[in-house]
Amino acid sequence: MSSAVEKVIAGDVRTVARLIRDIDDKIPGVRDVLKALYAHTGKAYVIGITGAPGVGKSTLVDQMVNHYRHQGKSVGVLAVDPTSPFTGGAILGDRIRMQRHSLDDGVFIRSLATRGHFGGLSQSTRSAIDVLDAMGKDYIIVETVGVGQDEVDVVKSAQTTVIVVIPGMGDDIQAIKAGILEVGDLFVINKADREGADKTFNELRQMIDMGHEKYEDGKWKPPILKAEAVFDRGVTELLETIERHRDYLLKASQGNKLRKNKERIREDLVEMIKSRLIQEVLDHMSENDRLNKAVDAVMDGEIDPYTACDELLLSTLRALQKDL
Amino acid sequence: MSSAVEKVIAGDVRTVARLIRDIDDKIPGVRDVLKALYAHTGKAYVIGITGAPGVGKSTLVDQMVNHYRHQGKSVGVLAVDPTSPFTGGAILGDRIRMQRHSLDDGVFIRSLATRGHFGGLSQSTRSAIDVLDAMGKDYIIVETVGVGQDEVDVVKSAQTTVIVVIPGMGDDIQAIKAGILEVGDLFVINKADREGADKTFNELRQMIDMGHEKYEDGKWKPPILKAEAVFDRGVTELLETIERHRDYLLKASQGNKLRKNKERIREDLVEMIKSRLIQEVLDHMSENDRLNKAVDAVMDGEIDPYTACDELLLSTLRALQKDL
Repeated sequence: MSSAVEKVIAGDVRTVARLIRDIDDKIPGVRDVLKALYAHTGKAYVIGITGAPGVGKSTLVDQMVNHYRHQGKSVGVLAVDPTSPFTGGAILGDRIRMQRHSLDDGVFIRSLATRGHFGGLSQSTRSAIDVLDAMGKDYIIVETVGVGQDEVDVVKSAQTTVIVVIPGMGDDIQAIKAGILEVGDLFVINKADREGADKTFNELRQMIDMGHEKYEDGKWKPPILKAEAVFDRGVTELLETIERHRDYLLKASQGNKLRKNKERIREDLVEMIKSRLIQEVLDHMSENDRLNKAVDAVMDGEIDPYTACDELLLSTLRALQKDL
Repeated sequence: MSSAVEKVIAGDVRTVARLIRDIDDKIPGVRDVLKALYAHTGKAYVIGITGAPGVGKSTLVDQMVNHYRHQGKSVGVLAVDPTSPFTGGAILGDRIRMQRHSLDDGVFIRSLATRGHFGGLSQSTRSAIDVLDAMGKDYIIVETVGVGQDEVDVVKSAQTTVIVVIPGMGDDIQAIKAGILEVGDLFVINKADREGADKTFNELRQMIDMGHEKYEDGKWKPPILKAEAVFDRGVTELLETIERHRDYLLKASQGNKLRKNKERIREDLVEMIKSRLIQEVLDHMSENDRLNKAVDAVMDGEIDPYTACDELLLSTLRALQKDL
């Protein structure tokens, strides 16, 4: 066992921080550490927190961390932030957030900012969760801006997904809520003192009820909670509801580890294959100048891109095959 | 030339609608129509409109359509909506939007709702743009919720990308703006009568200036406009600025067609290869029960998923190779 693996399992913060950064940067060699760490994962409980910008996710997560710490539980937080390197938003955010918990060994907070890589975000997040799990964290909170397929993929790694909304977010909220509704295990209306909280509650209730056929036979029906995270109101209820959902999942899984049930392993594996496949093939194509030639042919009108794609794929698979 | 291809080029609305739906649903056979249509694309100007939920994108797009119609231009609108089939939000949205322009042959509005498919959204959008282009639309407006990699990929298909914000959207807006800042060719502060519009203007100005090294040598520097779309204020200026950007691009491209420059063809081709590759490999894996066996092995602790992924990929590529 390599020293990095031993150090992660022993909870060494520096090693974990470096490993997560290396995952985010796609440093080669990280895979071997992850392979060795995998046997030490499966104990943590992963909570996804998602919602549009401005709903107060960070404040809510901060309060959750405080509550868990009071319960004597250790917590890892991954803020998944599709931010550009342009402003370094993720790093700045980390610094601000770290300050509050900087003297507490029981809390580990880190941002993941991978972007521009096909499916890279959810893949990196999955690996980072594995690392915090192997590190021994009781709870891992994954916070993400809840719009777009990438974000939906990210919260799939969570056992309990919390969708945060605020009252009166305009017409588009309907579409957003619909887009992430089916991944939500519970809903929190934050800033619930604002006007329109009851209207938002009723709208959410209606949307959940519309899917009522899904909730037969004792299936979990997403509860809707109200909170004012900034005043620590509703956080206790949130944590209690998360535990209720956890109990429900444990019962439904018939004793299997939640992070390692068949459905989840399958999804993880498929995601991993996708991102690995793309990396290998694109690397290969660009090395061999095939892509450039195809681009020129399309540009000169010699071939349409759909046909070019088929031919390129075929020849690349052939070449990759020879390499294997 | 198939009759579907002929009908699209003749501008037949029913054929176009069915084709776009088939693209969204990934119906086989669509590829052949797209191949044949490709030679008829490259004339339309594609505008991306993106921004967080609630900023008034739909209202702005509606006003833009009106203005273009008054100029005698035909317009296609693609509302890219990562909405679930759960509520049918996209279809509902279409119906509401279509009403206003239902008697106008010069406007074609359609929502794309593909989701759950790796990179499917941007691929479908690209193909749908090709169809509207071949149909003869002068302008194609692609409207999307501007968060997440998927959405960023979608707006890459546009020649001019407009980022819409509203005053005072909370702390998270910083991260969002950063995430899409580099794809924005111009910014619109909508609902500019609201408090904080000047503050938002200054913040945006600062962020753009921070990247000033990018804007040397006569490079386009994203302007910031103010608008109140609901009262049709600022829309004329927006359209004028889009034309300025178009002129800039035409000058920079030295006569090449904007939709078919080298950079864009390369990106389109790479995206297409990615989504096609994944489709082929995953289909093959599931047909051959390889994936199931690997999932079982991981679940039984016989192998870690990283190693399983490598082995699965190797054997699938080998098998695919034999089929070719």
